[in-house]
Amino acid sequence: MSSLDEFALIRRLTEGKQSAAFQQASGVDKGIGDDAAVAYLAPGCQLVMTCDTMTESIHFQPNTMRDSDVGYKAMAAAISDIGAMGAIPRYALVALSIPQETPLHKLEAIYQGLYECANRWSVVIVGGDTTSCIGGLTLTVTVIGEVSEGQALLRSSAKTGDVLFATGELGCSAAGLDYLLQQALPFEQWPNIDKDSAEARLIAAHCRPEPQIEIGQLLQQSKVCGALNDVSDGLASEAWEIAQASGVGIDLIEDRIPIADELMAYAEKAEKDPLHYILYGGEDYKLIGTMQAEHAIEMQIKFREAGHSLYIIGYVNAEDSGVRLVQSSGYVVPIEKKGYNHFRKD
Amino acid sequence: MSSLDEFALIRRLTEGKQSAAFQQASGVDKGIGDDAAVAYLAPGCQLVMTCDTMTESIHFQPNTMRDSDVGYKAMAAAISDIGAMGAIPRYALVALSIPQETPLHKLEAIYQGLYECANRWSVVIVGGDTTSCIGGLTLTVTVIGEVSEGQALLRSSAKTGDVLFATGELGCSAAGLDYLLQQALPFEQWPNIDKDSAEARLIAAHCRPEPQIEIGQLLQQSKVCGALNDVSDGLASEAWEIAQASGVGIDLIEDRIPIADELMAYAEKAEKDPLHYILYGGEDYKLIGTMQAEHAIEMQIKFREAGHSLYIIGYVNAEDSGVRLVQSSGYVVPIEKKGYNHFRKD
Repeated sequence: MSSLDEFALIRRLTEGKQSAAFQQASGVDKGIGDDAAVAYLAPGCQLVMTCDTMTESIHFQPNTMRDSDVGYKAMAAAISDIGAMGAIPRYALVALSIPQETPLHKLEAIYQGLYECANRWSVVIVGGDTTSCIGGLTLTVTVIGEVSEGQALLRSSAKTGDVLFATGELGCSAAGLDYLLQQALPFEQWPNIDKDSAEARLIAAHCRPEPQIEIGQLLQQSKVCGALNDVSDGLASEAWEIAQASGVGIDLIEDRIPIADELMAYAEKAEKDPLHYILYGGEDYKLIGTMQAEHAIEMQIKFREAGHSLYIIGYVNAEDSGVRLVQSSGYVVPIEKKGYNHFRKD
Repeated sequence: MSSLDEFALIRRLTEGKQSAAFQQASGVDKGIGDDAAVAYLAPGCQLVMTCDTMTESIHFQPNTMRDSDVGYKAMAAAISDIGAMGAIPRYALVALSIPQETPLHKLEAIYQGLYECANRWSVVIVGGDTTSCIGGLTLTVTVIGEVSEGQALLRSSAKTGDVLFATGELGCSAAGLDYLLQQALPFEQWPNIDKDSAEARLIAAHCRPEPQIEIGQLLQQSKVCGALNDVSDGLASEAWEIAQASGVGIDLIEDRIPIADELMAYAEKAEKDPLHYILYGGEDYKLIGTMQAEHAIEMQIKFREAGHSLYIIGYVNAEDSGVRLVQSSGYVVPIEKKGYNHFRKD
């Protein structure tokens, strides 16, 4: 890699990955190759902006993610934040800092993953910055999207009497990470496990999460959705964010929380409580949110018709009671506000 | 710092730094504290997007920049890219990755610098991501701006017969870096040098560069400006970028290139050629660009009236001759396309 200069490197990593026709159709006037990118926003839309960083040894290791997964997941995480506003992701900027001795094929794999994810959700990569660094690789993806004026779905919109929903099964990503950490094999040595096995599905949940953009749209257009969050830090943390931002209490009903078959199978084998992964795992990138109770059934039907799932897993109450779990036994227990914390020592 | 959780840390670093009134007046609907930020773009405007990364030991060291300078300069560099499109910077996202043992006062100083720069150019910090990392601190600033539809000033717009201009004296930042590297003192031990000394002015040029947003605007509104670049990698590299993107040759006239008094004084003392800093230094964040020759004098008058400088330092020719220097002696010599390169070993 040291023989390539910076511009040649950027060209090698980005050229031809997204066609000029696609970029033009996506409203890009000037993409990679100038001081800044220039693009259009649809009339009547507001800007939606987010960024997400993944760092080596903290967010990923050679035994928990392949290089292409690192790119894919960084892009997916930022796209998911746009979806969690009920917005449409449009443009992305990629800032990659790499140790100077990084082999070119590693960079190419990261970019392959970045583009694979971006292309899947029709996001144009319009710029970025590629720098060297000491220490671990750092990847920051910024995504810019749009939402009809005043229609963004905020955390602060939960209301007493609303139900709490989840748009998919949670905890699989954390269980996948657990599995990979226990194998402790660099990815080149991952076993060729059966694609349909529970483990393979858990690994996919961890390495190739799917931002639910279409579902975010469905919720935004329904006009009955209140608060919305994507599950990046576990159900407990996300429910707490909604509760605090909205000034309400949230009760989760244990019996209503869906558990994926693969998570159940893995938890049984590992002799762990699947609920632990669901509450405190994270990086699932499914959505949780609130909606008026009277629209829940109608929305569940709409979701089923669109090929999606909508699980009603709790309700919003007026009390300042934080987040609680109504257990199968009938006991109501408080749920800690915790997920992965970068700056707290446990 | 380890006693603060992530949300408490973000609050501590960002809360109260930009008033709600300022944010609202700037079109921010939802700032820090949700999955993504939501804001307005002026009607008839296009989006302009860029990001810039600074990494420890590569872009800065404890003896070349204070913590607050790191924040200030990362913001300034990204804002400058927006200015170099003739656009107005509006919103910023800050991604900061820090070694886990970083003291809180260091983070506070970085954020103080980030906000100082953002406030000066009326940019609202609307979001970001704060993560831990192994190895050096990494700071990525994304800036999103706006420009009237179709009015962005691109690198590719230089035309034969245009003159090449610079909007300020170059090379001071590189000379400042040289001076600081030779002192090799951690910033706590920097001497209290006279604020008006040549050294102090060079240090300021390196640590507190000023993006020329007003000047970019003046050029964009003039309608006589062709190509435009900000000088982040030295005059040689920036002139080459314009030459290649526009398919023209550029000749720099040595006698016309302005040299700041402080650069001249420093270069004499250090027995170096000031032109070396100008051509191959960078991080000055002045603008260079092209305009139709017949408008040069009228624009110089406009610039003087607005309190700015416009130096005509070369011309654009039709030949595929790359970038050349017309020396004081009359000789014409080719200029290498080089600046700081992250991925090349010299």
